[in-house]
Amino acid sequence: MDWVEELGKICEVFPPSDAYRVDETPPLIAPEPAENFVVVKPENSVDVSEILKFANERGIPVFTRGGGTGLSGGAVPTANGILLSTEKMVEIEVDTENRVAVCGAGVTLKQLDRAAFKNGLSFPPHPGAETATVGGMIATNAGGVRALKYGTMRNYVLGLEFVLASGKILRVGGRTVKNSSGYSLLHLLIGSEGTLGVVTQATLRLFPAMKDITVLAAPFQRMEDAMSCVVEISSKMLPMALEFMERRAVEIGERVSGRRWVSREGEAHLLMIFERFDEAEEAAEIAENKGAIDVFVATGKREQDDLMAVRGLIYEGLRNEIIEILDACVPPAKIADYWRKSNELAEKYGIELVTYGHAGDGNVHQHPLIYDGWENTYFEFRKKLLELAVSYGGVISGEHGIGTVKIQELAEICPDQYRIMKEIKSLFDPRGILNPGKVVLPNHG
Amino acid sequence: MDWVEELGKICEVFPPSDAYRVDETPPLIAPEPAENFVVVKPENSVDVSEILKFANERGIPVFTRGGGTGLSGGAVPTANGILLSTEKMVEIEVDTENRVAVCGAGVTLKQLDRAAFKNGLSFPPHPGAETATVGGMIATNAGGVRALKYGTMRNYVLGLEFVLASGKILRVGGRTVKNSSGYSLLHLLIGSEGTLGVVTQATLRLFPAMKDITVLAAPFQRMEDAMSCVVEISSKMLPMALEFMERRAVEIGERVSGRRWVSREGEAHLLMIFERFDEAEEAAEIAENKGAIDVFVATGKREQDDLMAVRGLIYEGLRNEIIEILDACVPPAKIADYWRKSNELAEKYGIELVTYGHAGDGNVHQHPLIYDGWENTYFEFRKKLLELAVSYGGVISGEHGIGTVKIQELAEICPDQYRIMKEIKSLFDPRGILNPGKVVLPNHG
Repeated sequence: MDWVEELGKICEVFPPSDAYRVDETPPLIAPEPAENFVVVKPENSVDVSEILKFANERGIPVFTRGGGTGLSGGAVPTANGILLSTEKMVEIEVDTENRVAVCGAGVTLKQLDRAAFKNGLSFPPHPGAETATVGGMIATNAGGVRALKYGTMRNYVLGLEFVLASGKILRVGGRTVKNSSGYSLLHLLIGSEGTLGVVTQATLRLFPAMKDITVLAAPFQRMEDAMSCVVEISSKMLPMALEFMERRAVEIGERVSGRRWVSREGEAHLLMIFERFDEAEEAAEIAENKGAIDVFVATGKREQDDLMAVRGLIYEGLRNEIIEILDACVPPAKIADYWRKSNELAEKYGIELVTYGHAGDGNVHQHPLIYDGWENTYFEFRKKLLELAVSYGGVISGEHGIGTVKIQELAEICPDQYRIMKEIKSLFDPRGILNPGKVVLPNHG
Repeated sequence: MDWVEELGKICEVFPPSDAYRVDETPPLIAPEPAENFVVVKPENSVDVSEILKFANERGIPVFTRGGGTGLSGGAVPTANGILLSTEKMVEIEVDTENRVAVCGAGVTLKQLDRAAFKNGLSFPPHPGAETATVGGMIATNAGGVRALKYGTMRNYVLGLEFVLASGKILRVGGRTVKNSSGYSLLHLLIGSEGTLGVVTQATLRLFPAMKDITVLAAPFQRMEDAMSCVVEISSKMLPMALEFMERRAVEIGERVSGRRWVSREGEAHLLMIFERFDEAEEAAEIAENKGAIDVFVATGKREQDDLMAVRGLIYEGLRNEIIEILDACVPPAKIADYWRKSNELAEKYGIELVTYGHAGDGNVHQHPLIYDGWENTYFEFRKKLLELAVSYGGVISGEHGIGTVKIQELAEICPDQYRIMKEIKSLFDPRGILNPGKVVLPNHG
């Protein structure tokens, strides 16, 4: 680290405080942070450009960090190098006429939501963490509960400013929803987890203000009936959210939130959010026809908050007891089948899974509970589980990204794609300085 | 072409009939087709793989062709080689439970629309030509009038099967709307116009059936007022379409369609389509407040068809009189300004532009009329025009793609992006056999 003094000549250098060593990846699978990195806090793309030029010339690793809310180890500085925090790139310009927000990479979801709201507009995607940053949400193509109706982060990024490993600043896209001007570097950067370039600013699409919502809760005796209800509703309308929880997840959510769910009966519980009351009514009827034990319609804010708190706090109740949170996707109509087969597979390994997720878009959050000797058998189980998801026409990660925790699975389950990804990585970052050890490994790795 | 006989051993080879020599690019700027290409009609990805392997080993150019409805020369076989028509890859499987259609690349928009409709579902994107194919629409990231509400082709492609130049068959994505599993090869292929790989099958997202529509027509004295109306409406709701036409375009549309538009007064005319009647009512009120000369609300199918025919047939009336159809995007609030400045610029060159387009998403179709000596001055004018669009935060092509007709502008207006695109091209297609001379030129070009 003889370069630190020299780096100090081009920007302020901060010591590696503990907050920068971790993201929200469960500790058992989180990567080991390096001992001796330094922290820099550039204010704009020119600062970033100088830092990257410096690092690239010397082959120094650069770990870009947003809100640190990731669940795949993507933001952990795993080698002695530079941690580039986007925390000072927090400008927001809301262009109401063109319905876009131009945001620094460090703008948080909460700041963006507020700025949109103040201008009579909204930013529909809603990944869980409000402290997630625009840069981080782009890095993982974040999803969340509203993706069914509103899509993932990818559907909102119209323009990007990013800096290549060489220090070159690029601007792609614009303030417009259509673009057919050659290969989409913009969409290649989205989901690349800081390994192809450092995003410094994004132009995001905003929507008109959200309407009042209606929340429905419906417990079902069997997961199959719940999912049959999801499929039927999805064929008729696009709810804002269509969530499912197995009973055990509901119990945990109740315990942590201190609120009561509508029923403790039944194997599977649906939580649905609608922007149109007529659609909520139609969905309630479908749920009844599909054999729901009960259908509870919440129009008041307080009862809606109660229901959503139960769903929203499950992870909080689980986080200290789990190995990790998985996020495979399967086609929605296969969820019940995937859930049963997953549990059968888990049972063979003596593993307990707690499951809930985004039923409408097929994104299943499975939480393996910690068990003695997990290191010996867990990864074998996990690979089989992800292969199972892919065999249904699914993908291994729906919204958390690859980070450090799923590289092996990406390489083994999708070897041809992985090979091309490595070539793309070499093209963008020939010296391998950008978030090394994430998404793809270097050839000798 | 001493390889033709050998090619005949692995697949049936057809002679180069004239229909394969052109797409719908206006003749003045369309590229010159080759004399001596041959045509192949593979039925699946395995056939395509064998053809590409054969061509790649010998360095033979392969031009993939869908419906031939492109407007940028992308599908024209410009060298003696193989024209790969997707016309036999026409299988459709509609998976109603997961709301997706799995389509061969040669399925037409019309076939897809019908298949979705028969299953009580819909495919929202609606690029103009119903004979466009799934492969072609993916190749250009096609847009159309509904992109404002429903996005472009990119928002509908969940999974892709494509064949690399080497003959390797790749499958990416799945039957699920979320995917954060490494770099998005899927989105890199979308919009790559057959130059990075040959798309053989796509999994497309379907939506619930469309609702009844309400159509609004509103003429305005000034373009600025019309666009101010567009901006105001867009801040409150997402109409299915928000189209504008200058008066001259309306007159052409009336002439070709034989239908009457609501008024011949006024500089700018809006055509708006809504899926909700209450939104149409609110929009009508906004249009009145913004000084519309008249607001005509069409709820009956026949009067709706009349209005839409006027808009829909403008291009038909222009096609023989124009050099080309441009498709730059600017932020919607800048359309009026861009339109005036474009006309000023055109006047300096003695050029007449006829303009209409997708006001809600900023996609402006400008049609320069043919004039004597156009070859000498037109391209200089065009470059300035596209630079103007980009200076507003726009892009040079919103939906037609680069093809052969805008390579120079892409290279000159976006040089850094162009350089990376060339590197990506070399990575995917080292021998440069896939649709050569489109999107990017080889280094010696």
